[in-house]
Amino acid sequence: MRIERLALIGVGLIGGSLARALKRAGACGEIVGASREEAELKQALALGFIDRYQVEAAAAVTGADMVVVATPVGAMRQVFASIAGHLAADAVITDVGSAKASVIADARATLGGAFARFVPGHPIAGTEKSGVEAGLADLYAGQRVTLTPVAETDTTALARVRAMWVAAGAVVEEMTAELHDEILARTSHLPHMAAFALVDLLAGADGGEQMLRFAGGGFRDLTRVASSSPRMWRDIALANRQALVQAMDAYGLRWQALREAIAAGDGEALERIFARAKQARDSLPGNDKATSRR
Amino acid sequence: MRIERLALIGVGLIGGSLARALKRAGACGEIVGASREEAELKQALALGFIDRYQVEAAAAVTGADMVVVATPVGAMRQVFASIAGHLAADAVITDVGSAKASVIADARATLGGAFARFVPGHPIAGTEKSGVEAGLADLYAGQRVTLTPVAETDTTALARVRAMWVAAGAVVEEMTAELHDEILARTSHLPHMAAFALVDLLAGADGGEQMLRFAGGGFRDLTRVASSSPRMWRDIALANRQALVQAMDAYGLRWQALREAIAAGDGEALERIFARAKQARDSLPGNDKATSRR
Repeated sequence: MRIERLALIGVGLIGGSLARALKRAGACGEIVGASREEAELKQALALGFIDRYQVEAAAAVTGADMVVVATPVGAMRQVFASIAGHLAADAVITDVGSAKASVIADARATLGGAFARFVPGHPIAGTEKSGVEAGLADLYAGQRVTLTPVAETDTTALARVRAMWVAAGAVVEEMTAELHDEILARTSHLPHMAAFALVDLLAGADGGEQMLRFAGGGFRDLTRVASSSPRMWRDIALANRQALVQAMDAYGLRWQALREAIAAGDGEALERIFARAKQARDSLPGNDKATSRR
Repeated sequence: MRIERLALIGVGLIGGSLARALKRAGACGEIVGASREEAELKQALALGFIDRYQVEAAAAVTGADMVVVATPVGAMRQVFASIAGHLAADAVITDVGSAKASVIADARATLGGAFARFVPGHPIAGTEKSGVEAGLADLYAGQRVTLTPVAETDTTALARVRAMWVAAGAVVEEMTAELHDEILARTSHLPHMAAFALVDLLAGADGGEQMLRFAGGGFRDLTRVASSSPRMWRDIALANRQALVQAMDAYGLRWQALREAIAAGDGEALERIFARAKQARDSLPGNDKATSRR
């Protein structure tokens, strides 16, 4: 089950952290990087988390028994299409996309017979940083990785991807792509949209610069994720469009109700809403006790 | 200009931190605490940041040359009314409320002749913690305190309150109450509403508990402030109602625009919005470089 040759398509934070973790665990032989940006590949090579590289994904997957597609989700369909004819007969393919239904549809449409060996995956970890240098060997230690196999998914392929993530230190769970997408829309994509909207509102306001000077620690905490890669989030928002729009509409309704309670001076309703939110927030699993200043 | 006797009405995070800072700086003689909860006063006495206490605010202000009202804003009007007849002729009064126009209106309506010696103030610092034990002597070190004097405000009173906050380590600024309230609505109150709404949406959803299990570091960062005191935020939302509702409506429009761009699959618009937000976020003054995991 050891990985002999891993082709890593995309050498940014997510893929680079996985490669670092697998290297450290001695869980794979050779890692071949691929990226459209050769400068990134040279950097990855210098950092030592890939052993060699190919600019073309199709060349990188040749002879690989494990292929990890770690590009922004918007680029995955094209990657799948370009590697489909070059995969080894037993190659297992997986991805790290934040939206699963759309990636599965892309893979189904492009991978041909290899689709049965495609295991949709999503490591629910990351930082607001991105790029070749941002990776951390322990990024996945104790973190969740969700796999969302479909009816056609080969059980051996599933087991191999699971073993890879376990070797990287992660806790692996399975669920349907639909449930994954709904959960991620609400716990990750929606909060990111809220952060982007909050910062954008300030940045676009008259006197916005003066206002930003006043932004305290609370604002900083709330909006830290707005520093994330715009292209990556464009891709995620579009890939998980359906679940995200649904979640945004639900949020919009809550927002309106909150606004009405404030406008009406309904202190009881406000205290009820805030208390319910506090209770839920305080009960978050693995709740960090760190105090943040605002 | 040294404070001889400071009456501290409310011994929670904000007032308790100020008392600790002034004690440490040797900037005042005696501190007399007041609170409707005697247990809190006993705790404050044991922690050493007050020297003695009175349950009644009116008794606490007797003979005090500085009165700091550090209760939730919703309780301030009643506090002002109860102390008005007991203030020394030269006593300076100030508050720490997060909304200024409504507190000024409360003070104007209740303090009588002492209103000229009332200096509206707001330390823009805090944590999501609250309570007698949550205070920190260095909570205000290098943090902004905004004073919003009105036409009637006595310049000596203003200077004394300014000196008190400087002694506590803060950077003091003056602006109008209206500007303060608008800025705070957008940089603090609005983000808090967003955090409350995000958590409340999850907590109220079918399968919300399962979803909360998936909440990553990004969600935790975004919603940490939702652990704040519900009563305090009820009071703030109501006290700054006008500016907050305006800000919430502006946010609602941005939200709708973002939702439409996603629903329409308009990747260019999304990338533009996200990039503008990232630029503004990255340029925050005192931007902490800490990486937060999500």
